[in-house]
Amino acid sequence: MIQGRDVVTLDTFSAEEIRHVTARARRMKAEGHGRPLVGRSLAMVFFDPSLRTRVSFDIAFSSLGGSVIDMAATRDLWPLAFGEGAVMDGLADEHVRDAAGVLSEYADLIAIRALDREGDWAQARQDLVIVSFQLHSSVPIFNMESVLDHPCQAFADALTLEEELGTLEGKKLALTWGWHPKARPLAVPHGVGLMASKLGMRTTIAHPEGYDLDGKTLATMRHAAAASGGSLDVVYDMDEALEQADVVYAASWGATRHHGRPDAEQAHRQPFRDWRLTTDRMAHTNGGRFMHAMPIRRNVEADDAVVDSAGSLIRRQAGNRLHVQRALFAEVLGA
Amino acid sequence: MIQGRDVVTLDTFSAEEIRHVTARARRMKAEGHGRPLVGRSLAMVFFDPSLRTRVSFDIAFSSLGGSVIDMAATRDLWPLAFGEGAVMDGLADEHVRDAAGVLSEYADLIAIRALDREGDWAQARQDLVIVSFQLHSSVPIFNMESVLDHPCQAFADALTLEEELGTLEGKKLALTWGWHPKARPLAVPHGVGLMASKLGMRTTIAHPEGYDLDGKTLATMRHAAAASGGSLDVVYDMDEALEQADVVYAASWGATRHHGRPDAEQAHRQPFRDWRLTTDRMAHTNGGRFMHAMPIRRNVEADDAVVDSAGSLIRRQAGNRLHVQRALFAEVLGA
Amino acid sequence: MIQGRDVVTLDTFSAEEIRHVTARARRMKAEGHGRPLVGRSLAMVFFDPSLRTRVSFDIAFSSLGGSVIDMAATRDLWPLAFGEGAVMDGLADEHVRDAAGVLSEYADLIAIRALDREGDWAQARQDLVIVSFQLHSSVPIFNMESVLDHPCQAFADALTLEEELGTLEGKKLALTWGWHPKARPLAVPHGVGLMASKLGMRTTIAHPEGYDLDGKTLATMRHAAAASGGSLDVVYDMDEALEQADVVYAASWGATRHHGRPDAEQAHRQPFRDWRLTTDRMAHTNGGRFMHAMPIRRNVEADDAVVDSAGSLIRRQAGNRLHVQRALFAEVLGA
Repeated sequence: MIQGRDVVTLDTFSAEEIRHVTARARRMKAEGHGRPLVGRSLAMVFFDPSLRTRVSFDIAFSSLGGSVIDMAATRDLWPLAFGEGAVMDGLADEHVRDAAGVLSEYADLIAIRALDREGDWAQARQDLVIVSFQLHSSVPIFNMESVLDHPCQAFADALTLEEELGTLEGKKLALTWGWHPKARPLAVPHGVGLMASKLGMRTTIAHPEGYDLDGKTLATMRHAAAASGGSLDVVYDMDEALEQADVVYAASWGATRHHGRPDAEQAHRQPFRDWRLTTDRMAHTNGGRFMHAMPIRRNVEADDAVVDSAGSLIRRQAGNRLHVQRALFAEVLGA
Repeated sequence: MIQGRDVVTLDTFSAEEIRHVTARARRMKAEGHGRPLVGRSLAMVFFDPSLRTRVSFDIAFSSLGGSVIDMAATRDLWPLAFGEGAVMDGLADEHVRDAAGVLSEYADLIAIRALDREGDWAQARQDLVIVSFQLHSSVPIFNMESVLDHPCQAFADALTLEEELGTLEGKKLALTWGWHPKARPLAVPHGVGLMASKLGMRTTIAHPEGYDLDGKTLATMRHAAAASGGSLDVVYDMDEALEQADVVYAASWGATRHHGRPDAEQAHRQPFRDWRLTTDRMAHTNGGRFMHAMPIRRNVEADDAVVDSAGSLIRRQAGNRLHVQRALFAEVLGA
Repeated sequence: MIQGRDVVTLDTFSAEEIRHVTARARRMKAEGHGRPLVGRSLAMVFFDPSLRTRVSFDIAFSSLGGSVIDMAATRDLWPLAFGEGAVMDGLADEHVRDAAGVLSEYADLIAIRALDREGDWAQARQDLVIVSFQLHSSVPIFNMESVLDHPCQAFADALTLEEELGTLEGKKLALTWGWHPKARPLAVPHGVGLMASKLGMRTTIAHPEGYDLDGKTLATMRHAAAASGGSLDVVYDMDEALEQADVVYAASWGATRHHGRPDAEQAHRQPFRDWRLTTDRMAHTNGGRFMHAMPIRRNVEADDAVVDSAGSLIRRQAGNRLHVQRALFAEVLGA
């Protein structure tokens, strides 16, 4: 169903395809997965650091029998040129066309993490690095988190939600911004929002003034929610979002209007330190389920009592990365 | 016998258990080892650099069919918070509770190297990093060298000694400090001393004034030697220790009273440049057997003529790391 | 035929041996290669960064069933001492004798990349790092590019040329210098020149005044060309070399007389910016075949129209690295 496809954004997957992937992940989790990828290889290129994604990608692929190359772009790649027709008389030693082309000769899959923080949001949201690899590679590209999306996290979250709630249609997801001392990427809320909207959830996004998600991505979510029978609302009050929520998904992200200008962003976020999940706040939800993609700032984004509560699903979310990635690798490689 | 156990210090292993591990290592070395770890994974996290340990861990685990992730803490982990109830509003992005918990979701074993050099000895000897991973991980932890111990080196040394001497009971081990331009960790002499004491050797530790091993660890050695029918002596003269020794084990380590204050430590060690193993000195031993955990400063800790002598076991010690680690991995994972 | 041998320079391989390797590579490429290296391991040590070589070595070895360790010398090795009898009281923590010896205990093959840029050419061409590893290792050494040679690239180029031209004897190879903002190593033109000369090609090397290849290596090429029935000429005009060439191989390299003095080298190369391959120039060849070992500076060494032309073989050259390296690993390990 998705053989040969890129896994770069949830936007390119239908609800049926997402459920097809989580169904295979559930089977692999319950029944084991064998070694269908013996002789296959995955090249991971990190333009930004990673823990969960690096380890879960590596172990998922290896445990299916394949071999994995782990590269840091700054250490293992030559400085890249990106423009068409570039006269490469400066710092860049290799064109992305050639780097992607050569990696395509060696690996069966290429996975990229690239969180460009240069320039303004209009520029950053072009996701130049991963889009360039998609353009110039002849093998499928996996997104290990880009400026715009983090699809494998969202697939893992879909599996976790299905395990916890059964059918997702009509269930209420509160996707809430939390205080964090730094401006974090928007990829996680984008991916989660797209996934929930496609799968028919009633999603309420809560954030302070100025922390709107990317406009175009939000429009895609609204469209998906309308098509799936779900809904999408945005509110400016954490408590309003939590009211009777079946699940609370906490995340933190930067103000796109200040993208690339950390001082302005810091000033903007200062008033919002009380956007923190407490047990009192969680008491207003329907069941106290708590999700977060990690790393989490304990007692800043959420209190220990929430993070370590019986309703906390964060450990299982992380573990499910393994299972959905095994399913995605096998499906994309037709194995 | 040791399935599911941590391998963090020799102290938690009985003589019978140590011999059980070296016996399995001998069988694997003689008869081959098969691929009992297919589908299993090992996550290695290096807070400090490594050559022998990194390579021998990786190849030992891989050759049994498993897959290995190699991480540098400063590059691949988020900066960690350690305290309970920490309000994470500073530099640390992730709590060790979550890092260890997530790695436990992905890997069947976690191996840690962490040589904390901050603070005084009383603080350093808490071995905060590896103890925290033990506390928060749900899979077994291997110590790839901590402040206090280097158990896999000691297991390899036990195998090497058994190969060379047959039974170890009653054999004399001279464990001697050597000059080195830098203050090195105490982990190797601790591990070797514990191993020799548990296995019934007559151990003589030699070092200059001020270079006492950790007091509590030394007390454990004395207790173990008494229980095993061996003995433990400390002298302040290299030649006295070497007299009729069946094996000389050279190491270098820092003065704990100056831990974390390199200038004071340097001043303290200056008078002891003649603590160097020469062929003349080795002539007073019983057979001229020489051991060292490497890296070794040639012609500083010991002369080339000693390091490259017929009695030098250093190359075999390094090689035996592979065999004992294969045995430990298989035993701990019940494979 | 080459079991147990080092693969450090083309110079130690006869034409028959080179053809034996490319023949096995062709069979593996056509028919598949199985998993003959299960249980074997490769230790790669990079003293300099790498993309193509790192990835193709790793995937080639892994896809045959073996396991691979990837080390950066500056990160994973201790600072090395090289001299015999060195009194190691300075910065070096370990002697290359011990590092190579220990790696030999663990790995079945050791692969080294070391492009020493210190000192003058007479010193650099000693290739101290790789020669020291050859001396002190007890397992075969692979050269992943040294000061003097890049044999695996040359083997891959031999395969590519055979695929494209059939028999190589009597075919004309134009090996031409190209403008590049930096002084690049001589290893690629050395390896290609040796390979072509051994396999009976008529080779014309073109470069500006002062960009002579290493004198001793050039003498070896001349000798090999005479023995094989080929020929070797050196000209100072790119267009003269291209005339009726069956293949154009572009490379860039530094002026050995200025080795280790970047400013002098820069000044020397400034007049030669017009050494750039264009479609006009390629029109004078016999068939427009273009080769380059990459990374390539587009529109500086060669125009996009050449690099992306139908006659461009650069992508296939890179891909053939996998196949010849699989063949070399299997042959050297007798598998």
